[in-house]
Amino acid sequence: MDLIVQKFGGTSVADVPRINRAARRAIQAKQDNLQVVMVVSAMGKTTDTLIDMARQINPDPPRRELDMLMTTGEQVSMSLMAMAIHAHGHEAISLTGGQIGLICDSVHTKARIQKIDADRIRKELAAGKIVIVAGFQGIDEAGEIYTLGRGASDTTAVALAAVLKARYCEIYTDVDGIYTTDPRIEPRARKIQQISYDEMLELASLGAGVMHSRAIEFGKKYHVDIHVRSSFTDSPGTFITHEVEQMEHIVVSGVTVKKDIAQFVLVGLPNTPGVAANLFVHVAEHNVIVDDIIQTVDDNGKASISFTVEKGDLAECKLVVEEIRRQYAGIDVNIIDPVAKVSAVGVGMRSHTGVARKMFGALAAAQVNINAITTSEIKISCIIPPSDADKALRAVHEAFGLDQQPA
Amino acid sequence: MDLIVQKFGGTSVADVPRINRAARRAIQAKQDNLQVVMVVSAMGKTTDTLIDMARQINPDPPRRELDMLMTTGEQVSMSLMAMAIHAHGHEAISLTGGQIGLICDSVHTKARIQKIDADRIRKELAAGKIVIVAGFQGIDEAGEIYTLGRGASDTTAVALAAVLKARYCEIYTDVDGIYTTDPRIEPRARKIQQISYDEMLELASLGAGVMHSRAIEFGKKYHVDIHVRSSFTDSPGTFITHEVEQMEHIVVSGVTVKKDIAQFVLVGLPNTPGVAANLFVHVAEHNVIVDDIIQTVDDNGKASISFTVEKGDLAECKLVVEEIRRQYAGIDVNIIDPVAKVSAVGVGMRSHTGVARKMFGALAAAQVNINAITTSEIKISCIIPPSDADKALRAVHEAFGLDQQPA
Repeated sequence: MDLIVQKFGGTSVADVPRINRAARRAIQAKQDNLQVVMVVSAMGKTTDTLIDMARQINPDPPRRELDMLMTTGEQVSMSLMAMAIHAHGHEAISLTGGQIGLICDSVHTKARIQKIDADRIRKELAAGKIVIVAGFQGIDEAGEIYTLGRGASDTTAVALAAVLKARYCEIYTDVDGIYTTDPRIEPRARKIQQISYDEMLELASLGAGVMHSRAIEFGKKYHVDIHVRSSFTDSPGTFITHEVEQMEHIVVSGVTVKKDIAQFVLVGLPNTPGVAANLFVHVAEHNVIVDDIIQTVDDNGKASISFTVEKGDLAECKLVVEEIRRQYAGIDVNIIDPVAKVSAVGVGMRSHTGVARKMFGALAAAQVNINAITTSEIKISCIIPPSDADKALRAVHEAFGLDQQPA
Repeated sequence: MDLIVQKFGGTSVADVPRINRAARRAIQAKQDNLQVVMVVSAMGKTTDTLIDMARQINPDPPRRELDMLMTTGEQVSMSLMAMAIHAHGHEAISLTGGQIGLICDSVHTKARIQKIDADRIRKELAAGKIVIVAGFQGIDEAGEIYTLGRGASDTTAVALAAVLKARYCEIYTDVDGIYTTDPRIEPRARKIQQISYDEMLELASLGAGVMHSRAIEFGKKYHVDIHVRSSFTDSPGTFITHEVEQMEHIVVSGVTVKKDIAQFVLVGLPNTPGVAANLFVHVAEHNVIVDDIIQTVDDNGKASISFTVEKGDLAECKLVVEEIRRQYAGIDVNIIDPVAKVSAVGVGMRSHTGVARKMFGALAAAQVNINAITTSEIKISCIIPPSDADKALRAVHEAFGLDQQPA
């Protein structure tokens, strides 16, 4: 018998009617002759509420106790889900991360899954039950309780789908799929029917926050087809799958814009081995996450290095750059704050030419100045003034025909 | 190093200030050079709120899932308690029923403790930590999660005190001890300094609901001194201990009244072996709990049996009695609904004479008619009209001098 995993996020189990709706979806799949494993998040904003309560008591609570606290959220929603399914006349059982044998490493509040011994799940499925699993949690070999990082119920779901060789993994959420861009900025954005893991990973890292990156990585690694869809409608959402040939015909799948970033430009550095390494060792030691690193050499043989950071890391990064400035006499540091980044993502870039030209042309036509450009195999990003961000997004979106229905 | 167990009920951890107050009590004990194990209940009315939510979803939720749901309440309060102790600069760790190795039988919502493997607790205590344990929960040998019945956090605490050979077990609650009677009915009721397990068991079964009966049984069986006290003051409460000689000088320790009961009187039954057994087999099959059974034989050689039931069991018990009436031709059934029961409890009864005379005399002087009398070794109960209940309580309380300070 085929098996599917259905993951329901916080908004999809936020109250009693929504829990009942999710229960009916699982029962429908069961009646369609599928084995069903549900993965649930905590109800609505429960996790935030628990963290707020913790911080009232202790502004810096021990992470072990935060995990102990937060894991109750999923335990509540999974038991209520089991009751809802029973109320509809079907058998169900809820299981904690420990009970399904989800073993993770011993890093509180952001543990990583190491293995899943799914014997208990298989036994309950074989007994005809819908199995409901707490997302976001696991135990280590010693039996200590951990959470897997915010949003990691997605990862639980995809990992279970991999272990159980599910036909696919459905991610029920409050949006109805992945869009070519943010519909709040570009109303002509369209829902993407199918997208590759790599594209989805790029989009996620660029702030298209529908799914947890680690879940997509799991999907890619273990060949799990993921269907992101709305819990409020029956229409299909977006399938995240391995690259198929037809994806290559689509040059650009999505366009994103990221605001709230700042750009550092260090000019006049010695062009000798180890300079960049030295800089980014310091940055890493301060736990600052950097992006869009560009190094160039000027006419005088001096190196320039620029990079971007999120606004939250700005103050910390300024301290790092001060250290660097003391080490290298005569360097200039420019901080451009804020800047925006518009990016085009598509696996079709690998096999198509003229993508960069089309993107830069669209920005030029829209009178948008480009501060910096970075590229990857399937992505082009331009750093631009934040006041032009929305205009730039719409221009690039239109240039690649994303507002048009594909042929 | 000596060890104490401190149990904090729902009202004692109902909000952040109360959690902090409980944390400071534990820290004080630690600073007094004691090892400290705390047992916590769910915050305030959390358990009721969870059950209400469950019943909205399923009027008859599976008991396994109810246990899964309810055990989150203690997990929240214990993790917050650990955070509070850390905020005060001390080390603490919270542990679930499973983590402390509290193994129970496999009866959902009312499991019984079978053993506690306290190695983990001992290890954490040895590391200098205050150990916080979730009350009311355990696991069975298969790792399934159970609750131990309403109010069973007391039982967890006393059982832990037994296993860990604690100096004593403190039960922090919203009253400041055990009283000679209900102060809401008799304002001259006094706090009892010391009471025996047996007396406390009788009082608990008679509705003096400060402590869970099973906890008292554990205390008696494993010689745990229990100190019931208020979490809002520092004054001593009531010690529940083994009988000591001075208790014998006190004839009656407490007086209780129970309302909301009904009396069944079956007249004209054959006085032959097996009649009573037949009656109470039927009663037990319907899960009706009976009390105050009296059998007599009249002039005609016919037997009369009377007993009381709580109002909640009245309808079910009427069905049972109808079955009995069909089996024995010509019997009469009288149901006296409601009746009340006033009881005097004291281990001193064993060694003192005239106790019954004093009690009946007090009731006669107060013009209270007695429907029935039952006694145990340390208790006398009288079934009386409910309209006389409060008056009867005050009369008996005064007759045994309970309103006077003991010599």
